Amino acid sequence: MNYLQVLGNNVRSLRIINNLTQEQLADICDLHRTYIGAIERGDRNVSLNNIVKIAETLGVTPAILLTDNEEVSK
Amino acid sequence: MNYLQVLGNNVRSLRIINNLTQEQLADICDLHRTYIGAIERGDRNVSLNNIVKIAETLGVTPAILLTDNEEVSK
Repeated sequence: MNYLQVLGNNVRSLRIINNLTQEQLADICDLHRTYIGAIERGDRNVSLNNIVKIAETLGVTPAILLTDNEEVSK
Repeated sequence: MNYLQVLGNNVRSLRIINNLTQEQLADICDLHRTYIGAIERGDRNVSLNNIVKIAETLGVTPAILLTDNEEVSK
């Protein structure tokens, strides 16, 4: 399983549920908008500290961000 | 919550359950023994790809490695 993609899909879904743009999420996490975009595409090997920051902003645990919720994810 | 420490505690517990030394776990994951030691102490900001490698070697999902199982963890 591609966990970078699992993370990316979950970040995108939860960001939209939270009614945040990539830029807003990035600002709250003190990260760059293009970095959030790359995470959502599964293109970045994110560090645990950044996973924790994003999870806290989205109101979930880091474990939730790494859980594959949908077999058909695209 | 300190998720670097949660990860470290879980890696150490599962490594011992799997009857592996730090060196053996490191070799299987193609990482360095001292890096595994630092992870177990909660001293390293591990990347998701390395979390995945360690999880697969220990027979669990990355989400399990990031789940706090014990309130009293030390």
